Amino acid sequence: MTTVFEERTRRAQERLRDADADLVLFPSHNLFYLSGFAEHPGERHLLLFVPRDGDPTFLVPSLYGEQVRETSWVADVRTWDDDEDPREQLASVVADLDLGDRLLVDDTMHARFTQDLAAVHDAETGLASEVLAPLRVRKDEAELDALRRAGAVADAAVEEVRALGADAVGTTERELARTVERALVDAGGEEVSFEVHTASGPNGAMPHHTHGDRRIERGDPVVLDFGAYLDHYPSDQTRTVVFAGDPPEGFEAVHEVVREAQQAAVDAVAPGVTCEAVNATAREVIEDAGYGEQFVHRTGHGVGLDVHEEPYVVAGNDRELEPGMVFSVEPGVYLPGEFGVRIEDLVVVTGDGCERLNHTDRGWRC
Amino acid sequence: MTTVFEERTRRAQERLRDADADLVLFPSHNLFYLSGFAEHPGERHLLLFVPRDGDPTFLVPSLYGEQVRETSWVADVRTWDDDEDPREQLASVVADLDLGDRLLVDDTMHARFTQDLAAVHDAETGLASEVLAPLRVRKDEAELDALRRAGAVADAAVEEVRALGADAVGTTERELARTVERALVDAGGEEVSFEVHTASGPNGAMPHHTHGDRRIERGDPVVLDFGAYLDHYPSDQTRTVVFAGDPPEGFEAVHEVVREAQQAAVDAVAPGVTCEAVNATAREVIEDAGYGEQFVHRTGHGVGLDVHEEPYVVAGNDRELEPGMVFSVEPGVYLPGEFGVRIEDLVVVTGDGCERLNHTDRGWRC
Repeated sequence: MTTVFEERTRRAQERLRDADADLVLFPSHNLFYLSGFAEHPGERHLLLFVPRDGDPTFLVPSLYGEQVRETSWVADVRTWDDDEDPREQLASVVADLDLGDRLLVDDTMHARFTQDLAAVHDAETGLASEVLAPLRVRKDEAELDALRRAGAVADAAVEEVRALGADAVGTTERELARTVERALVDAGGEEVSFEVHTASGPNGAMPHHTHGDRRIERGDPVVLDFGAYLDHYPSDQTRTVVFAGDPPEGFEAVHEVVREAQQAAVDAVAPGVTCEAVNATAREVIEDAGYGEQFVHRTGHGVGLDVHEEPYVVAGNDRELEPGMVFSVEPGVYLPGEFGVRIEDLVVVTGDGCERLNHTDRGWRC
Repeated sequence: MTTVFEERTRRAQERLRDADADLVLFPSHNLFYLSGFAEHPGERHLLLFVPRDGDPTFLVPSLYGEQVRETSWVADVRTWDDDEDPREQLASVVADLDLGDRLLVDDTMHARFTQDLAAVHDAETGLASEVLAPLRVRKDEAELDALRRAGAVADAAVEEVRALGADAVGTTERELARTVERALVDAGGEEVSFEVHTASGPNGAMPHHTHGDRRIERGDPVVLDFGAYLDHYPSDQTRTVVFAGDPPEGFEAVHEVVREAQQAAVDAVAPGVTCEAVNATAREVIEDAGYGEQFVHRTGHGVGLDVHEEPYVVAGNDRELEPGMVFSVEPGVYLPGEFGVRIEDLVVVTGDGCERLNHTDRGWRC
């Protein structure tokens, strides 16, 4: 494992030299990608300094010292105690590393840390993604393997949940979300990759509604959008189903439109095709059916260590697809007060098209 | 509900005027505290502007528009579409609100947003906690009620897990963590308040080890540290138990020291007492027993909408406790390669002492 992380760091340093910049990360997927140490952001200063030349340095709270030394290849691990002011050590690391006047910081670094950095080192700042996104956007075989296995976890869970059929009627969205979480765990998932969506009836018309106390009724369309992590890589798929009874007027037609749009966009994926072209393909099907105004979001987002990362499948993104890129294809139509429909699979770009990472039935009947 | 959030905003604006500053929040507990809208950080621009005078303005992705208007009292909700550059709208909001030359941004605001803000508005920056932490640190009755109920969820789960006894032997830490998660959900928890710790044997000596693939053996001390959210407020408690068999040499004595330290610190809590004094009380017991070097973290942290917030019970914090403050009391001793012991309850400062929010057995026998 050590070798992979160090190799990535050396490749990042080549790009840092080209960008005439040094890099500072905090607990993030970028930090894991380069160091092998995974942690969530906290309120304590935990920073990884990657100068353009030489070796990286960790500055971590003492209580993380042993764990960081065990899990990361980075040799220079400096610690600070809870009764010290971490900004003093921060200043000394910055001085030791002789950082230049351009600093790239983690895109998600919290203001409390960027402000402390700015206080001890006057530099033009940019975002770490400038050098790391181009490395992370093309997945290697080990990464694809993890993504495929995570996809299988989501597939197994969605099949288990669909099998509830009429038993799902009468349960609340929250209870159904808990059932989904258990199904993900039972299928081998380590933790959910985002809050489970079990948006029923009119709640499905709010694309980011996750789950609430509404009870699922007969005939309700339910947007099931969820995934789980496996070995640091997530799954993310969506099916819109009706557990029992007849769906509302107009639902079948909308569902069919979304399904066609999703299929058309997947068919359009190939190396050299732009992200905006894939987006336009889905949008065109939906616009032709008269629901353009109700397709309120982009067609998809890249998926890797982050559930949302490059490439974004959105209007205006003229980036060309390359083999190894992984992203979601998830058109949707949302009718406020009535229902919503979204269908989503992850795909990986291959030499001549793409491979889906999700394989369950895309229809609405359970 | 609306009233509470607007009242908090008006109180925050009084402090903003005193601080000669305006405020910008992004998806965070601060944003929920003032607006009533709860969301996790994403990569899309979702910002709440609170000028020192007048009414706040939301800038949100279109797909959040309906949801924000439904859940928040804030009337001015502006949206941007996925095919627009949000920085243009950002510039126009900043211009409309006539923000001053001092801006407080959310402590956890991601660098990608602080850099965009800096690009359109040249201002001295500070952290939102400057005005919001003093408001949030004293909990009102509704908040205390939620915290007590969340505490009861953690208590119920720890009792269910302890009841496993010898059945826990042979399971992996990860499996035990899943059992904990289910117990929390069964007890009414909405989601875990942080990754569940089921650190067994020598893993318990790493204070931030959560769970891995190690199998629990007879005689292993296991550090059980977990909690769950209920109505946006978390619980957080720790017990160190032995599921079956005889603990390792020296464990009983260390456990007793930690338990005494925890009791002494809880007994020391009262209005007017400083945070550092509570910390020193726990530390003194552990130092007197010869384990001062192995107590590698502070005694506790405040708990509210954030699992870690003010007041921090740490050396050097001369802040005086006030009624309504809620924090953890969690001394620990860590013997690398052997085991760790930590015991934690949340307490709320009362008129003349404190009330514990956790009530389960603090002993190590299951």
